[in-house]
Amino acid sequence: MTSSAGDPRLLRALSGEVLPRPPVWLMRQAGRYLPEYRALRATAPDFIAFCLDPEKAAEVTLQPMRRFPLDAAIVFADILLIPKALGQKVWFETGEGPRLGELPPLEGLWSHVEGAADALSAVGETLSRVRAALEPDRALIGFAGAPWTVLTYMLEGRSSDRSRARALAYEQPERIDALIDVLVEATWRYLAMQVSAGAQALVLFESWAEGLPQDLFERLVIHPHARLLSRLRQAGVAAPLVGFPRGGGSLVAEYAKRVDVDAVALDTQASAALGKEIQASGRAIQGALDPQLLRAGGVALERRVDQLLDQWGDGPYVFNLGHGVLPDTPVQHVERVIRQVVDHG
Amino acid sequence: MTSSAGDPRLLRALSGEVLPRPPVWLMRQAGRYLPEYRALRATAPDFIAFCLDPEKAAEVTLQPMRRFPLDAAIVFADILLIPKALGQKVWFETGEGPRLGELPPLEGLWSHVEGAADALSAVGETLSRVRAALEPDRALIGFAGAPWTVLTYMLEGRSSDRSRARALAYEQPERIDALIDVLVEATWRYLAMQVSAGAQALVLFESWAEGLPQDLFERLVIHPHARLLSRLRQAGVAAPLVGFPRGGGSLVAEYAKRVDVDAVALDTQASAALGKEIQASGRAIQGALDPQLLRAGGVALERRVDQLLDQWGDGPYVFNLGHGVLPDTPVQHVERVIRQVVDHG
Repeated sequence: MTSSAGDPRLLRALSGEVLPRPPVWLMRQAGRYLPEYRALRATAPDFIAFCLDPEKAAEVTLQPMRRFPLDAAIVFADILLIPKALGQKVWFETGEGPRLGELPPLEGLWSHVEGAADALSAVGETLSRVRAALEPDRALIGFAGAPWTVLTYMLEGRSSDRSRARALAYEQPERIDALIDVLVEATWRYLAMQVSAGAQALVLFESWAEGLPQDLFERLVIHPHARLLSRLRQAGVAAPLVGFPRGGGSLVAEYAKRVDVDAVALDTQASAALGKEIQASGRAIQGALDPQLLRAGGVALERRVDQLLDQWGDGPYVFNLGHGVLPDTPVQHVERVIRQVVDHG
Repeated sequence: MTSSAGDPRLLRALSGEVLPRPPVWLMRQAGRYLPEYRALRATAPDFIAFCLDPEKAAEVTLQPMRRFPLDAAIVFADILLIPKALGQKVWFETGEGPRLGELPPLEGLWSHVEGAADALSAVGETLSRVRAALEPDRALIGFAGAPWTVLTYMLEGRSSDRSRARALAYEQPERIDALIDVLVEATWRYLAMQVSAGAQALVLFESWAEGLPQDLFERLVIHPHARLLSRLRQAGVAAPLVGFPRGGGSLVAEYAKRVDVDAVALDTQASAALGKEIQASGRAIQGALDPQLLRAGGVALERRVDQLLDQWGDGPYVFNLGHGVLPDTPVQHVERVIRQVVDHG
């Protein structure tokens, strides 16, 4: 990755540049804490259909960009679009979260891999619309769920403590590794399509790295991320990739050493030292304000934002949360934090 | 801590000695995976009463010691005995877990602090009975829940995702810090009583260090642990203390630097590098086999045990799990792992 002074601030930070103030975007910046999101969402009872409606998804993606001086938009979509594209039924039960139908056999999944990006062309259409509407100095981010995280949903059929998926990783290693392979192959194609459609940076969300011991973390997170990244680069996709091994704890240092992502997103719990260690290797970090503190607000929030800017601001840094904005977060708190970052330095 | 060659293997390891093979004990080694535990437990419908029945609790503590060549017994008790001793109602709903009554006002809690150890003298009686029955080369461990972890139950009234407790840590910092103080004062007295009654080593279980950002981790984990340890030492209690900041991720390195515990227990996710870094400071580590792998068994289990012995065995090390034995773990898997450690080196 190289970038120049005219590039959007996000891309400069992701290329390793240290800026007077870091770019800022927030995970789930488009979402339920915004009244205009809730209003639009109320018109679309089916969540998956909502994600695959380019007009609505583009509108939702742009909503926080109108309110706040954010440096990047992230396409509104869901990590469970991939299993859907691979032929597994996915739906959302109101108030309960995702549900997935029976896992198709391996050959069934493989038969959908080549066409996975086409099956999700609606996400590309959303990206094109957002890119056309967005100012040139604001970056557009595409994303996907990482293979292990997506697989936990595919195996468990819903949100869970992932104990069944982890047990299978021990008990049926060949089967699990084969399923991870399918996901690596589908996911890089999906991400490449997003870049063709206008995404300028990519995030790979490994939301459930949490709790994996080192041997499984290497097998299910480090190796698949490295393979996926190498497939992307082989295919000529040069957009910067942010890896987010959420809940990876002390293993995140290992991840940063062994996966050549452009930036490592850190979760709420990451130590200052871990971030600095990654920055010292020339890579950017992203994170890691506690969404609960964003919700709570007050002087503690302001102090913590300053602390994060101080502790990581002298290396390549993207200000963000350590996890998504909580639905009951006051909009003014979000506004205030973004202002504080933008006015910094 | 100093120890001599005649001391139980556990105490030698906790004093920093590197042994040809590490001592081994397992969190929840006395528990539901053992048929003799289930049989005795069936005679006692009330779990708290069961913990406070010295005859039954001693028997349960000794059950795994008869079956396996374990190097240490850990007293059978529960981390929620402390809130009970402080005047908060605690009970267990069958199949659902703990329930706690309304949190008494601060003055009410303080009024019970001096008498907390006496209120739990049954645990001392259990320890005396176990010590009398145990061979001298096998150590006896006492324990308590750490203040923050116990407080999350006291505030939420049950097992939870701790989001209410964390929100209060932000929104009512003085109140939360005052509650932590009460717990520090009650807990060191309880631990000191356990040592008087026969405990030769202590574990402080911070089961819910998980997810705390660094500022809260310092306030709610590092400082209270350091205070508690200093109170114990001031009171002349010299027994080694093992701190277990479970789920502390990259912050565990910080914990190890700033809390002068004799050993740091590592959870399932701890990296090999983190353990080595702590050992390099002269302190012992404990951990960290995945309980799910113990349940799954097979050649992967055997390989992982060897890997742990190799990666940490040349520093002061106590073999253990990264979390408690799961109830549906086959007894033969436990037997096999303990044998593998005992026969090592």
